[in-house]
Amino acid sequence: MASSTVYKKYQSKCDYSYTLGAFPTIELLKNKPDKVIKILIHPDMDSEEQLDILNELCNKNKIELCKSKAEVERLRDKENIYCIGIFNKYDEKLKDSKGHVVLVNPGDMGNLGTIIRTAIGFGIDDLAIIEPAADIFNPKAVRASMGALFQLRFRRYASFDEYESENKGREFFPFMLKGATDLQMLDKSHVDKYALIFGNEATGLPDEFANKGTSVLIRHEKTIDSLNLSMACGIALYEFTK
Amino acid sequence: MASSTVYKKYQSKCDYSYTLGAFPTIELLKNKPDKVIKILIHPDMDSEEQLDILNELCNKNKIELCKSKAEVERLRDKENIYCIGIFNKYDEKLKDSKGHVVLVNPGDMGNLGTIIRTAIGFGIDDLAIIEPAADIFNPKAVRASMGALFQLRFRRYASFDEYESENKGREFFPFMLKGATDLQMLDKSHVDKYALIFGNEATGLPDEFANKGTSVLIRHEKTIDSLNLSMACGIALYEFTK
Repeated sequence: MASSTVYKKYQSKCDYSYTLGAFPTIELLKNKPDKVIKILIHPDMDSEEQLDILNELCNKNKIELCKSKAEVERLRDKENIYCIGIFNKYDEKLKDSKGHVVLVNPGDMGNLGTIIRTAIGFGIDDLAIIEPAADIFNPKAVRASMGALFQLRFRRYASFDEYESENKGREFFPFMLKGATDLQMLDKSHVDKYALIFGNEATGLPDEFANKGTSVLIRHEKTIDSLNLSMACGIALYEFTK
Repeated sequence: MASSTVYKKYQSKCDYSYTLGAFPTIELLKNKPDKVIKILIHPDMDSEEQLDILNELCNKNKIELCKSKAEVERLRDKENIYCIGIFNKYDEKLKDSKGHVVLVNPGDMGNLGTIIRTAIGFGIDDLAIIEPAADIFNPKAVRASMGALFQLRFRRYASFDEYESENKGREFFPFMLKGATDLQMLDKSHVDKYALIFGNEATGLPDEFANKGTSVLIRHEKTIDSLNLSMACGIALYEFTK
């Protein structure tokens, strides 16, 4: 894409997106330099340390770094944003690693970000998203992940079947309120490769997932309807990566 | 307080607060009817089921239920709010129950709400908040807890020392990045009553907490600085209430 393109405020139909702020922009440059189109710096940016890192990473990867007050001010969503990374959206093949997280129709960008951060925190670097789903490339989701998005592999699938056919030889653990096995009681000693599967925030997983592998319940009191999605996912990740 | 009082948009210095929406208002009426000043209903509210529940709970507890378009529209923060509960703020004595959660200087109302919901989900009904802290009575925190706030006991303390002197005979588990014991390795078999202690989102617990009881670490990869506060708290609650 020519750098003379006029970039607009983010829309999900764009084939590019933004990192808003120095922190996620540095994570982008460190982890996905080949996806970067260019970096924009506002002249009021005053952190010498961050500027040095940005300059170094751009030089090393031959990425254009432009000072542009007008462009940063047009694209940012908060006044305290002085650095923006523009990058091409991408999809990656998941690795046949030990653990996958599969989110079926996640609806909330904040949850997506928190789950991504927690997943890499527990060493799980492969994420499948079954569409329709919240837009993982929305700058708000990128921000919620605090840049962790660029540290894992993720792939969007049109259906769970598509995920399943592309990722064979893996035990499925759908987390459901009707789960047959209590997470605390689950014997994971024989488990080789696994997929932890979670449904939408409001509706959970469809009933048919009860027949896919071993359905799991995180037991809780009846005082609440359910744990929130990112919490359930974090607890499952903690337990499976012990 | 006379019901002729003119109520204003929420401010933390007020001695009353609001539940915005039918769901938290019903939780308020069910769990803390003695704190309710009155209930406001917008004439456009159209859920007969919710109206029936609100009417029944107000009748039973002799609480005034007013139809008032103007007052609801003045106090609500979103257009889809048709029901508001006005209640007196309160503090309660914590019970000498098995588990306490102690939040030292929590800064984020969304986290407070998520933690409250998760705590009661795992059967922990006593929460201490060490000030300065995010305002637990802010309608946004009440909303984030989805009304769970009214189902637990909580008490605000000016200092941790104050909490400590009022709640004796309890083992302390401060959760810290420098924690001496890995949560996975922690032998909890001998633990009778406990307090799970967490610091501020950005700064964690001050170093001196390392000497209070058994400091605990939730091990994670170096790819992230730390787990987020509500996630760490949820994982600890899960592990301690197994």
